[in-house]
Amino acid sequence: MSDTVKYLLGEESIPKAWYNIAADLPKPLPPVLHPGTKQPIGPDDLAPLFPMELILQEVSTEREIPIPEPVRDVYKQWRCTPLYRARRLEKALQTPARIYYKYEGVSPAGSHKPNTAVAQAFYNKQAGVKRLITETGAGQWGSSLAFAGSVFGLEVQVFMVRVSYDQKPYRRALMETYGARCIASPSNETHSGREILAKRADHPGSLGIAISEAVEVAAQRDDTKYALGSVLNHVLLHQTVIGQEAIAQLEMAGDYPDVIVGCTGGGSNFAGIAFPFIGAQLRGGKKVRIVAVEPAACPSLTRGRYAYDFGDTAHLTPLTKMHTLGSTFTPPGFHAGGLRYHGMAPLVSHLQELGLITSTAYHQTACFEAGVQFARAEGIVPAPEANHAVKGAIVEALKCKEEGVSRSILFNLCGHGHFDMQAYIDYFGGKLKDIDYDEKELAMALAGLPSVAEPA
Amino acid sequence: MSDTVKYLLGEESIPKAWYNIAADLPKPLPPVLHPGTKQPIGPDDLAPLFPMELILQEVSTEREIPIPEPVRDVYKQWRCTPLYRARRLEKALQTPARIYYKYEGVSPAGSHKPNTAVAQAFYNKQAGVKRLITETGAGQWGSSLAFAGSVFGLEVQVFMVRVSYDQKPYRRALMETYGARCIASPSNETHSGREILAKRADHPGSLGIAISEAVEVAAQRDDTKYALGSVLNHVLLHQTVIGQEAIAQLEMAGDYPDVIVGCTGGGSNFAGIAFPFIGAQLRGGKKVRIVAVEPAACPSLTRGRYAYDFGDTAHLTPLTKMHTLGSTFTPPGFHAGGLRYHGMAPLVSHLQELGLITSTAYHQTACFEAGVQFARAEGIVPAPEANHAVKGAIVEALKCKEEGVSRSILFNLCGHGHFDMQAYIDYFGGKLKDIDYDEKELAMALAGLPSVAEPA
Repeated sequence: MSDTVKYLLGEESIPKAWYNIAADLPKPLPPVLHPGTKQPIGPDDLAPLFPMELILQEVSTEREIPIPEPVRDVYKQWRCTPLYRARRLEKALQTPARIYYKYEGVSPAGSHKPNTAVAQAFYNKQAGVKRLITETGAGQWGSSLAFAGSVFGLEVQVFMVRVSYDQKPYRRALMETYGARCIASPSNETHSGREILAKRADHPGSLGIAISEAVEVAAQRDDTKYALGSVLNHVLLHQTVIGQEAIAQLEMAGDYPDVIVGCTGGGSNFAGIAFPFIGAQLRGGKKVRIVAVEPAACPSLTRGRYAYDFGDTAHLTPLTKMHTLGSTFTPPGFHAGGLRYHGMAPLVSHLQELGLITSTAYHQTACFEAGVQFARAEGIVPAPEANHAVKGAIVEALKCKEEGVSRSILFNLCGHGHFDMQAYIDYFGGKLKDIDYDEKELAMALAGLPSVAEPA
Repeated sequence: MSDTVKYLLGEESIPKAWYNIAADLPKPLPPVLHPGTKQPIGPDDLAPLFPMELILQEVSTEREIPIPEPVRDVYKQWRCTPLYRARRLEKALQTPARIYYKYEGVSPAGSHKPNTAVAQAFYNKQAGVKRLITETGAGQWGSSLAFAGSVFGLEVQVFMVRVSYDQKPYRRALMETYGARCIASPSNETHSGREILAKRADHPGSLGIAISEAVEVAAQRDDTKYALGSVLNHVLLHQTVIGQEAIAQLEMAGDYPDVIVGCTGGGSNFAGIAFPFIGAQLRGGKKVRIVAVEPAACPSLTRGRYAYDFGDTAHLTPLTKMHTLGSTFTPPGFHAGGLRYHGMAPLVSHLQELGLITSTAYHQTACFEAGVQFARAEGIVPAPEANHAVKGAIVEALKCKEEGVSRSILFNLCGHGHFDMQAYIDYFGGKLKDIDYDEKELAMALAGLPSVAEPA
């Protein structure tokens, strides 16, 4: 067999519908609650922030939600993304496992995020929206929305956490190249930003603050809406093109996964690769073991509590039931900005409660070690977030070697690391430490969870 | 018509042979001369630096040189690369032109350079070589050879011009991630490096010095060879997969170019897109206007002299007839490191002398303006080098608009700009200046050209 095994689909194979796992759940998702009344919210409550089409997707239980042709047209630029058999990595590991990876780094922004950014920009444009506001940490999401905005002629403003704004000028430059405006958060442009700056002029910012600023600006104007890059149901929905393509590509390979591995921050790339396979299983298909890999420094699925919590630190968002470290929990600084979030997507959390997925956590140096081994074997340098999935896949492959069995392992390589080489420099320079979260801070954050009972 | 028009070929369409333009030249290339004797050199003179297979390719006049299966196998990872119709750019320009671009940024190193790096690594491995030495400026070539070395299990050492080594830590980190050793040049590891450091300990380095160091190390050991990323015939040969694929893809589009545009530094990506079309023309096919675009700050084709000159400043290399600004000419600092070379590939120079190509030069701010317009329309952020090709294509498209004719324009987008965002930051910050070379320095460098007559 050849060393390079790539399964490619033509653009006619780009899925025509997103797969909505809500249709197949054995038990429905707990309702989203209003932050004030603690009662289930309706579509209208979300209308100041999102266009109605996206709100309807958020609550839909239809199995298939058609992908509009203009969205499929933009997808064509980089989709279908390739599925590779990692033959060189298998050889390096001397494993009998069959390792496959879906590579989402071929998108213009270098990650899976444009799958939903393009869809969100389209529906907002269709609803007559002129301007999208969002927040970004490391910048993967902000640059993807900037790209999507440039395609559909929407203005994009991104509140970027100040510490990232200062430390990641390349991501910021990418957003500006696409024509977006990038604002260091906390800023003087919002009430919530000014309030924080009044207390501390050199505040480094946080994702929670940036969300507050973005939501505040979006809610003020009718022609302006908010966009989120993960966590919400409709965001996860849009990512299911990944897993649907993978099913078709594995069919070309004459294979089907025994294990699927994805990294989890908010949960969107994990959902993208895993949900279509979980759905097939729920409808009577083969049982697949699904492993969510998270950073040991921010372990919502493995160490968080499954409870109602806010999505932001300022408590402006609705309450959702999810695995959470507490909305006041501040993850320590480590090199995978996309995974530094206190909560987990409600759908992913729900699946874990139902026993349909498992989760595990690794420290960052082990993940970088795995990423470098992968890069030297397969030629692609993964993003720090994706290194967690690589690590998870290698662990599974080495288990196969130990047990002398050949299992089929599929993982999602959600983005390349070309904007994150500083992390590799730190790794090679021995400056990367295995950071743990503060146990006391976690205990306090969990103690501060809102006391909300799930409605009967 | 859809806005995204992508022409994709399966891996079975990766060319089975490289196209050697030497077979179709109406007049052969002037011979390469020994730097000492000034007489034509033979294959054996190059044997200390290159494996014999590459030397034979360097002098071959066979039209088709078969691509070894292990090389095609590695190509499969990212080839065939996509050809796009730039519909959104056409709309933005309101031009009747049909603009196509071949995108080479999908390779693991982000540019066209792996096309030859993989081939060179393969032939060296086959010849029993253990270690490849090269030099790099901005790092596109060094990282591509590092990637190729990791695939074939070859040690790679890269002498990187010190000023780039300090200013471009991300490219260096990419080389190290692939397992290569990256050395700031001038270094203490070579005679020529030590000699320069003795005179000036903080010497910023130059490509000429880095070449001297690499050649010195490679020539010392039997298991060690030298690799070059452009200029030489065999390097240009390996890039012809680009143009061959483009011919097949334009056939799918039912089109054929009236104009082809490429940027030129050493000439390799330009040759890659243009040579297969020039060859078809020389064998009786349609005449295509071919435009080489170079930086106004380093204009070898438009302002250089067609004469015998050295490839390096230390005068260790053979003499080749080419368009040159003089081997002592130091191009000013501008943001397209891949185009800062005093000479031009002998084959490209020869074609210009034969009237088969034309050339033009642009300043960098105009090229960045074009690159940003392209990014906002097409979603891909080009490398600074590639922005020169984008500028050339936009000029041609606007000519069509002025004349009210629809011509077919093809250009090569040789790489993405994800490692070069500092240049965009400088552009947006108004810090990018239109730098001109020093007229006096050019006059002096040209006056210092070796006095060599072409053998009869």
